[in-house]
Amino acid sequence: MDTNAPIKVYMTRKLIGVEPNDSIRRACEVMVEFDIGSLVVVENGKVVGFFTKSDVIRRVVIPGLPNTTPVREIMSGELISVDSNTPLREVLDLMAKKGIKHMLIEENGEIVGIFSLSDLLTASRRRLETAIAAE
Amino acid sequence: MDTNAPIKVYMTRKLIGVEPNDSIRRACEVMVEFDIGSLVVVENGKVVGFFTKSDVIRRVVIPGLPNTTPVREIMSGELISVDSNTPLREVLDLMAKKGIKHMLIEENGEIVGIFSLSDLLTASRRRLETAIAAE
Repeated sequence: MDTNAPIKVYMTRKLIGVEPNDSIRRACEVMVEFDIGSLVVVENGKVVGFFTKSDVIRRVVIPGLPNTTPVREIMSGELISVDSNTPLREVLDLMAKKGIKHMLIEENGEIVGIFSLSDLLTASRRRLETAIAAE
Repeated sequence: MDTNAPIKVYMTRKLIGVEPNDSIRRACEVMVEFDIGSLVVVENGKVVGFFTKSDVIRRVVIPGLPNTTPVREIMSGELISVDSNTPLREVLDLMAKKGIKHMLIEENGEIVGIFSLSDLLTASRRRLETAIAAE
């Protein structure tokens, strides 16, 4: 794990999305199916929102909303993102400061990927494997 | 981040718990309050179960259970744990293989802490801060 390397080396380029009118239940099924902790919300090919499992806990389970509620009612419309050339160390710093576990990544103003703590686990192990291979 | 160091260096010793008869709503409020992704379930001073936000998504939101359901109905009774002297690299390896984001830590057969991907973020940054301080 080279913390000076740009985040694009470690991010996941495959963005999994749902539509604003999809139900929370459907969105949760997608999260379980792909084993991911967040989803982008896409409308007419553009990312218009984002939400995490924590948002579902906070905005659905605690207030007791039905799982038929559309995703647009719980998504965050304000997207937090960094450029894909940002060094890993800066991204980790920002995530810790903001207390978030997922960071959207952009290139030329467009969301192209995501970096999560699961990617950090992969990155940490990648370094181990390289170290082991070099032994 | 020294991946050969024992996991006890990086784990969180403060275990946050609920009781088996607490409601899922109450448990979720505790997770939000402490900003954590999992809870141990404690009965008569003993850890009898464990569950994560993912378990809430999978076992509560998708099937549409009410948030008044007691925690005992969705907790995992089988606890996955490692000894506190296990090297960090082994723990990361195990978490990746099992696809889990939280690992319970035991000492002398008793659960004494937890290591999560948030702790990995802290550990990764700790190394950075040490590196920056040494510059």
